[in-house]
Amino acid sequence: EIAMSLTPHHLQLNQQGQLRHFLTIEGLSRELLTELLDTADSFLEVGERAVKKVPLLRGKTVCNVFFENSTRTRTTFELAAKRLSADVLNLNISTSSTSKGETLFDTLQNLEAMAADMFVVRHGDSGAAHFIAERVCPDVAVINAGDGNHAHPTQAMLDMFTIRQHKGAFEQLRFAIVGDILHSRVARSQIHALNILGAREIRVIGPKTLLPTEIERLGVTAFTNMDEGLRDIDVIMMLRLQLERMEGQLIPSSQEYFRLYGLTSERVARAAPDAVVMHPGPMNRGLEITSSVADGERSLILPQVTNGIAVRMSIMAKLMGPQSQNLESEP
Amino acid sequence: EIAMSLTPHHLQLNQQGQLRHFLTIEGLSRELLTELLDTADSFLEVGERAVKKVPLLRGKTVCNVFFENSTRTRTTFELAAKRLSADVLNLNISTSSTSKGETLFDTLQNLEAMAADMFVVRHGDSGAAHFIAERVCPDVAVINAGDGNHAHPTQAMLDMFTIRQHKGAFEQLRFAIVGDILHSRVARSQIHALNILGAREIRVIGPKTLLPTEIERLGVTAFTNMDEGLRDIDVIMMLRLQLERMEGQLIPSSQEYFRLYGLTSERVARAAPDAVVMHPGPMNRGLEITSSVADGERSLILPQVTNGIAVRMSIMAKLMGPQSQNLESEP
Amino acid sequence: EIAMSLTPHHLQLNQQGQLRHFLTIEGLSRELLTELLDTADSFLEVGERAVKKVPLLRGKTVCNVFFENSTRTRTTFELAAKRLSADVLNLNISTSSTSKGETLFDTLQNLEAMAADMFVVRHGDSGAAHFIAERVCPDVAVINAGDGNHAHPTQAMLDMFTIRQHKGAFEQLRFAIVGDILHSRVARSQIHALNILGAREIRVIGPKTLLPTEIERLGVTAFTNMDEGLRDIDVIMMLRLQLERMEGQLIPSSQEYFRLYGLTSERVARAAPDAVVMHPGPMNRGLEITSSVADGERSLILPQVTNGIAVRMSIMAKLMGPQSQNLESEP
Repeated sequence: EIAMSLTPHHLQLNQQGQLRHFLTIEGLSRELLTELLDTADSFLEVGERAVKKVPLLRGKTVCNVFFENSTRTRTTFELAAKRLSADVLNLNISTSSTSKGETLFDTLQNLEAMAADMFVVRHGDSGAAHFIAERVCPDVAVINAGDGNHAHPTQAMLDMFTIRQHKGAFEQLRFAIVGDILHSRVARSQIHALNILGAREIRVIGPKTLLPTEIERLGVTAFTNMDEGLRDIDVIMMLRLQLERMEGQLIPSSQEYFRLYGLTSERVARAAPDAVVMHPGPMNRGLEITSSVADGERSLILPQVTNGIAVRMSIMAKLMGPQSQNLESEP
Repeated sequence: EIAMSLTPHHLQLNQQGQLRHFLTIEGLSRELLTELLDTADSFLEVGERAVKKVPLLRGKTVCNVFFENSTRTRTTFELAAKRLSADVLNLNISTSSTSKGETLFDTLQNLEAMAADMFVVRHGDSGAAHFIAERVCPDVAVINAGDGNHAHPTQAMLDMFTIRQHKGAFEQLRFAIVGDILHSRVARSQIHALNILGAREIRVIGPKTLLPTEIERLGVTAFTNMDEGLRDIDVIMMLRLQLERMEGQLIPSSQEYFRLYGLTSERVARAAPDAVVMHPGPMNRGLEITSSVADGERSLILPQVTNGIAVRMSIMAKLMGPQSQNLESEP
Repeated sequence: EIAMSLTPHHLQLNQQGQLRHFLTIEGLSRELLTELLDTADSFLEVGERAVKKVPLLRGKTVCNVFFENSTRTRTTFELAAKRLSADVLNLNISTSSTSKGETLFDTLQNLEAMAADMFVVRHGDSGAAHFIAERVCPDVAVINAGDGNHAHPTQAMLDMFTIRQHKGAFEQLRFAIVGDILHSRVARSQIHALNILGAREIRVIGPKTLLPTEIERLGVTAFTNMDEGLRDIDVIMMLRLQLERMEGQLIPSSQEYFRLYGLTSERVARAAPDAVVMHPGPMNRGLEITSSVADGERSLILPQVTNGIAVRMSIMAKLMGPQSQNLESEP
């Protein structure tokens, strides 16, 4: 019982089962995920108003703490927080405090002492967001914006939102996640979310070197042949290949990778007739995906970006408590 | 007709002739420029209030997208947007997204998908702001904050504002633009604005190597002798010399350049008795201008900076639509 | 009389004795320091509200001008300003304007012309904040966020606040400041503040090479033996050692420094029974202080950080005028 309460997916719920932090999809209920998606629906409408703000986080301070640089993700969180009327602090830790030799522990303690209401954390080490969540004050919330190879739960949620928006019920749909499953925090979070939401089938596709052993224990089927793996698939979820980290080691060459696992229009045609294509960005065009697919009519890549703001607003609002259902504009 | 509508100065007006983007001075009407200057007059007064904010852009997001670093220009746009109650996102693209190998096209598409209301763009390539303006959604506005050698229209507008404020009617005034005309986006925008506003005479002064061929087609007279060129001039508009790019190639040496084209008190005395001096900054003191002139009583260099905020507020407000005439303070 | 009015500690008061700038503790009255601490008490309560904002600086622009990088200090000023409802501009001058060769003088003039209401300045040169305060418009306030070896008055004020909060009346207390007194702007400001507030006794402790000559003229007693210096001390105020600047020159080695001046639990036991420990951060753990002391029950290091925001709010509110006593939340 005590040991359980120290595992990540228990840390994020309080004793009443309410969301305290958003660290991983693992262990969350279908009801909670669905509620977050429903609230995001409302926020999407806010983004289309002339005045795109609601006062839910007025007077709150959201602190973006990025130990890894990511303009794209940081910007969507900043936009989401500002639309909720929060104040936003951006801290790029890699280039600042640590240059004075301060320990991570001291940096975090200091941030905590400054009494921000929410930390959005990206870090290269798995478990970093949990480490912080374990140490913050009771009324401070932590959102994991990507930690090592472990999890990227807000990315998975915006993917789920986009799927629901374009394809409807998860129970009817077959999914394929394609690429470097082994190192992908996005894939791990997607698999958890799809399982919780009742996906009909989940497959992972990639070279043997990039598939985790015992991946089937997560409730997925593994394919090394992409053409086989895509058969009857409704949603093709591509991953970004971190080419610089693996060429000559885990994959033979980028040409060979593209030949075997690059998503071309021909390959899309092997999936279900209405199959859609997703990618978390940034894309390596010509490596894991061709431009004709990325920019084609099946692509949901730009809706993913747009939806990311509404989904992050929804998660932030949920973490800040019961008043979060009030979507009235500011006077 | 179709070809015409693709040229930059048509892209920025909609079919009713209203301002959609602010990309170049070229092709704008005297009425529009005058209206922008008049509105800036009102905003100048806002800057002197205890509460320096008006709610015109409340709930709007202004995204500063700077592919070239420029703290000065970025800061004035940020101040202008915040005084209009907008939320501001600063993106320094050179140091972030592109480090992951994302293409410019994808970066732009992503920014667009994030649904900002306005992009303020600075880029080292001529035409970059137009490229973006052609691709954004119908309700998103783009402001050119300097593109390559092409245009810097907000700088020209703040110059026009400062001239009108201190010298009155353009029809009575003679202007000289001095320095590297060939590479200057500022000069190009100034010449268009002065012509549209009915300047009595416009001269450009510089070494032959830094004067564009056929510059006279823009409605100016070229001088290589500065003492001759300054005769009877009412407004001396200095340009910044990009010394690092040209020494030993386009100009013989900085000493020689200063001897021939540096603005000294003696040279100011050759202009009209009440001549004023302008410079867009940052200045190379002792190269294109002496400190006694830059800090002297004829200098309008600091008023240019102050006015820059009011002028940029005016342009932003105009782009955001008809409600832009309401200058009441926030409650 | 005229010469006097040019000294730093006169520049910061106007002819009615009201605070115009906050540049140094030196020359301020006990009444003023006490009033700032009392107001900070009120602001501390604001930090515990659900909506952490008060509208005192609504419509004002606070410009953080940092010529030295310091995420920690910049962030606390940014948080303080935002809780007062100000707009905040962050300018990191070292990496921007100066890269174009602009002079400091021009940079400052430009910032002034942009009409910010308050400048928070950090600079590596002693006197930089004064230099700027001498040149800004009459209604613009300057706060010194650390200048060279000279002063860091807001740090000293948050230290005083934390002392009063935890230990009560200064007249009853003995203080020891330990470390590199010679180069420390923090120590200099602390000594002035403690003297003004009526400390019972102030000692400085450090190796002879790091103690200024004639330090006794500031009203302190110098010790080179730490065990002697700590006897009966109520408040131990550690300084950060700038190790990289001095090893092998001003101190023999880091091991030797730790042996002689590192604060261990054993050394804390030599002070008064209820002695508390402070450090301005960032700490060199294992050099000037052990983790058991830094994280122990006597440590006030994290309260210092929390209090820093309330104290900086108090100083900013005081500088912005008489309306500063209204602590009502925004509607």
